[in-house]
Amino acid sequence: MSKKIFDNTLIIGMGLIGSSVARSLKKSKLSANILGYDINQNVINKCKKLKIVDLFVSNLNNSKYQFDLIIICSPLGTYSSIFKKLNKLIKQDCIITDVGSVKTEVINQYEKHCNNSYITFVPGHPIAGLEKSGPEYGFADLFKNRYCIITTKNSKNKNVKKIEKMWKSFGMKVEYMNSKHHDKVLAMTSHIPQLIAYSIVATTTDLENRMKDEVIKYSAAGFRDFTRLAGSDPIMWRDVYSQNKEAVLDMLGRFSEDLASLQKAIRNKDLNKMEKIFSSTKKIRKLIEDYGQAGSFDPREKK
Amino acid sequence: MSKKIFDNTLIIGMGLIGSSVARSLKKSKLSANILGYDINQNVINKCKKLKIVDLFVSNLNNSKYQFDLIIICSPLGTYSSIFKKLNKLIKQDCIITDVGSVKTEVINQYEKHCNNSYITFVPGHPIAGLEKSGPEYGFADLFKNRYCIITTKNSKNKNVKKIEKMWKSFGMKVEYMNSKHHDKVLAMTSHIPQLIAYSIVATTTDLENRMKDEVIKYSAAGFRDFTRLAGSDPIMWRDVYSQNKEAVLDMLGRFSEDLASLQKAIRNKDLNKMEKIFSSTKKIRKLIEDYGQAGSFDPREKK
Repeated sequence: MSKKIFDNTLIIGMGLIGSSVARSLKKSKLSANILGYDINQNVINKCKKLKIVDLFVSNLNNSKYQFDLIIICSPLGTYSSIFKKLNKLIKQDCIITDVGSVKTEVINQYEKHCNNSYITFVPGHPIAGLEKSGPEYGFADLFKNRYCIITTKNSKNKNVKKIEKMWKSFGMKVEYMNSKHHDKVLAMTSHIPQLIAYSIVATTTDLENRMKDEVIKYSAAGFRDFTRLAGSDPIMWRDVYSQNKEAVLDMLGRFSEDLASLQKAIRNKDLNKMEKIFSSTKKIRKLIEDYGQAGSFDPREKK
Repeated sequence: MSKKIFDNTLIIGMGLIGSSVARSLKKSKLSANILGYDINQNVINKCKKLKIVDLFVSNLNNSKYQFDLIIICSPLGTYSSIFKKLNKLIKQDCIITDVGSVKTEVINQYEKHCNNSYITFVPGHPIAGLEKSGPEYGFADLFKNRYCIITTKNSKNKNVKKIEKMWKSFGMKVEYMNSKHHDKVLAMTSHIPQLIAYSIVATTTDLENRMKDEVIKYSAAGFRDFTRLAGSDPIMWRDVYSQNKEAVLDMLGRFSEDLASLQKAIRNKDLNKMEKIFSSTKKIRKLIEDYGQAGSFDPREKK
């Protein structure tokens, strides 16, 4: 029996995530044809060389193809323009889904720009990634054992089930959540850690030159873990903070209070308080390891 | 020709670093005998089982042995008591060195408690580590390709040269620096990242239960990298902040300013400013990779 559930799938945005989706889709045989779209000719050339998709669509305004699945994998700032184009383009039943790490604002934009009854929009977020950008770094196993969150109320809808099936066939665990709650959880697990990593690495760029060189040289002491995150795509993250502003500012406020409290403990040499805080965090790490979400770090350099 | 340059080496504190030093020392054949000391019987038992040292010394007040090398690998808070005991114990030429990540305060304490002319103190800091604690996690290659900083003015002294030789034989690159500068650089590369990691993980522990569970479950999005650091030994870190207070508070002030500036950019949806900051940090990551100090991260779980 054929595994195919889609005829023509279009992936918009062929960077790290888009190219990994294409690779997984090919492996899963869920779509007869896989088409790609990207505004960057350099990205298109890399994908062609690596044979990641069957064909590239050159223009979203007047494509000669129709699609039964469209997966948006471009930065959040591109969505409104994409929604407007797809609203005009689509003339047969089509599921649109996405991979963006903010969901409430994405749903708002979809509702603002799309009134095409052929479209079912299934907002999604596969929580997987790497600090590298570009199709050459993508790989099919990126999604394996990771969680994918779908933020729709209609989890029984047959089109939603198709999207669930797709992510599950890539090895993901699928969960449903409302979009506001998703945005709060992700502010804490992703957007704030990323922001802090950017901030501390930015502090280094302001140091006098000799000091800066030494911080880089001796970075193996902890700092390097932050720079790994801070190596991520600037445009993608700029858009995340712009679109998840409220939740990010809320969590950032809580973090700043906790940091101020630790700062005070250091100023007062309050050993008991420090020990208590540092011991409590160790337990959180243990829970993440138990959940199988810790990844693995090797302090040695790659061969 | 024999490689041996020490007869009796004593390692005080047999945790992750102490046990790794013992393993490296054995491998290098630089010391005829390797003795250990620890206040924790559980640690001693593990070391005996793993045959990490030749013998354990039970008491620093009246040991029947004398040593030509003593390496202090215990938390910084234990140093003053150790210095007092060694000042009485030592009755033949002996080099004392250490591995602590704060140096100015350590030198002050040595000068306060030791006036024994048999002792040469060589303050050192091998910049290497893992978030695990205990002798069972140590390994000889921990020091390979990492930097070791020696904070003494007498880099030509024959005893200092012996310590340099030891770390080099473990695969380290040795550099000399004054202790105040060391403490500033390490505040930025190590103490502040660690403090921020503790702080953000602590923020999570304050969240309502449902939210906390979800943050742990979906931690693969960036948060987990912070929890890795926050899994480190609480006592060790408590002592670091207590003893490098000034430099840590200074760097923390700079970081807080930068974070506030990013917070403002988010509040104002200042996309240009965000993109500019996020792009500058990407360059720092690249420099660390070029330096061969990036380690390697595998997002997959360990087999």
